[in-house]
Amino acid sequence: MPELRQNMATKQWVIISTERARRPEEFVDWSQKPAHESLPAYDPACPFCVGNEEGPEMETLRLPQDGQPWQVRVVKNKFPALDQAGDRVREFDGVHRAISGVGYHEVVIETPQHNATPALLTDEAMAQTLLAFQMRSVVMSLDDRIEHVIFFKNHGVRAGTSLIHPHSQIIGLPVVPYDVRMRDEEARRYFDDTGGCVYCAMLQDELHEVRRVIAENDDFVAFVPYAALSPFHVWILPREHHSSFLMVSPISIHRLASLTLDVLRRLYYGLNDPDYNIVLRTSPVKAWYADYLHWYLSLIPRVSQSAGFELGSGMYINTALPEASAAFLRKMRNS
Amino acid sequence: MPELRQNMATKQWVIISTERARRPEEFVDWSQKPAHESLPAYDPACPFCVGNEEGPEMETLRLPQDGQPWQVRVVKNKFPALDQAGDRVREFDGVHRAISGVGYHEVVIETPQHNATPALLTDEAMAQTLLAFQMRSVVMSLDDRIEHVIFFKNHGVRAGTSLIHPHSQIIGLPVVPYDVRMRDEEARRYFDDTGGCVYCAMLQDELHEVRRVIAENDDFVAFVPYAALSPFHVWILPREHHSSFLMVSPISIHRLASLTLDVLRRLYYGLNDPDYNIVLRTSPVKAWYADYLHWYLSLIPRVSQSAGFELGSGMYINTALPEASAAFLRKMRNS
Repeated sequence: MPELRQNMATKQWVIISTERARRPEEFVDWSQKPAHESLPAYDPACPFCVGNEEGPEMETLRLPQDGQPWQVRVVKNKFPALDQAGDRVREFDGVHRAISGVGYHEVVIETPQHNATPALLTDEAMAQTLLAFQMRSVVMSLDDRIEHVIFFKNHGVRAGTSLIHPHSQIIGLPVVPYDVRMRDEEARRYFDDTGGCVYCAMLQDELHEVRRVIAENDDFVAFVPYAALSPFHVWILPREHHSSFLMVSPISIHRLASLTLDVLRRLYYGLNDPDYNIVLRTSPVKAWYADYLHWYLSLIPRVSQSAGFELGSGMYINTALPEASAAFLRKMRNS
Repeated sequence: MPELRQNMATKQWVIISTERARRPEEFVDWSQKPAHESLPAYDPACPFCVGNEEGPEMETLRLPQDGQPWQVRVVKNKFPALDQAGDRVREFDGVHRAISGVGYHEVVIETPQHNATPALLTDEAMAQTLLAFQMRSVVMSLDDRIEHVIFFKNHGVRAGTSLIHPHSQIIGLPVVPYDVRMRDEEARRYFDDTGGCVYCAMLQDELHEVRRVIAENDDFVAFVPYAALSPFHVWILPREHHSSFLMVSPISIHRLASLTLDVLRRLYYGLNDPDYNIVLRTSPVKAWYADYLHWYLSLIPRVSQSAGFELGSGMYINTALPEASAAFLRKMRNS
């Protein structure tokens, strides 16, 4: 019998489809080698490769900052979705509501090496990417026009990437997105009812149940959530309650990098380098102190295709048991 | 300067990205012929072709009903996401909330002809598909366990289809999806504030502004909404206010079929048979009389890829001006 499960934090239902369920092994496509294996270390046509950098006016951060060759660079997106200059102007006229498209759209180049792949980066390199996001996020958060900052990564064509050189993106928005506002409201409602953080409660439950946990370290736990949206959907949740990623210490960022890579390597070896998205969910800029919200990292492998049902309902059909996804990743090699 | 536009009905913001904007012509891929052109009229391996029908226990509707050869058939999905038998049982235990996966999952086979393509069907054939949905939707709505019925179509691989024989799907759900509930609440709030239906107000605005309208007939208007999610995103909205598709008369269903085909042909000829999803948005089963809701059909061509930003924010970046999308489709041939 299929089952509907509710994500307690968002109140969204997911169909866990047992009739269509596939064993974890059935999601693996072994027909092709990982894309990065056939790439050169340097591509003269790649705008992210060393030596092809655009002018310094495009660069907003470079790590390390001690004058050594860069390991991670943050640059303005050449075709930004939002414009950094200008005022935030609201034009509300009848049923037309518009706000000028001011904001930030930056790209984090995660490594100088064209044919690197994120799963096989060092902990240090991954930590610098996360640190770069935090540093840029602070700057954007101090800009009065910015309400919310999104950090995301698209790995592979099915995940929406067009450039293969490892990179992620940061977008600073002049509004709080509707979905983010709803997550905020649902978490607040739980806090009103219980006096606690719903994410903390979910984490305690996962640690107690154990069977959906993949890996953990001193600061973080990686698990397939009870109401996972899709096969191998992973949350990496900090044990310590903070609403905002801006509150995270450098040492904790290193531990996040280490556990994220641990999970990425399990995906890489277990599912043959699947396409995936990573999203860092953190509180809106002006709710960074909220005691009912809890930041976390969400990792969504793109092994199934969303379609009309998802568009029409906002619901997902997960064709893998979350417990089976977790068991598969738990036993997979991570180095 | 880019612009953020708000969908007044859902309160969701969309980034209309002028920096990345492409002209409508740039979305067209002329490199391949429409897929259906190279198919046979009958495929012995296709479960939807005439002669390959499964047993009558799988069939829930056949049109016409006069004993003539079928033009449209509705069958149970062979791998249903939900199980038709069983009770709706809630199991709420701490942070675990589950409901047994009871419901309906059916397939509408839109034509006996394997190599037909929806855009080139007759008005009559399309009307029968919509009528079949309405008839099955009535049956599902009378089932106490069902809270909401979704009708959707996936055309092409990028839209999530796996079988090429023209078909659409109906899912009867034992819950109201969170997104549907939020749409309901936002529309109700507008009604509380103004005493009117927000969709009626949006329709009046589109008819007044004209420039986003593509085509219209006595009962329906097809337009690219002011805050369109993506290039060529089209709404087909009934002029008459009804919350539920169950209220629509047969003659009106014929007019809906005719206008839907009109738009599909503009897409077919203008964008070379793009992949697309169709979703029919109607009120939850138990709110079919709501005076603040308004059913409509949403058509989403899959000419761009959603990625980490959409997952993380629930927002969309539209790289085409809605007014340009509408102008392009308006001048396109429709027969």
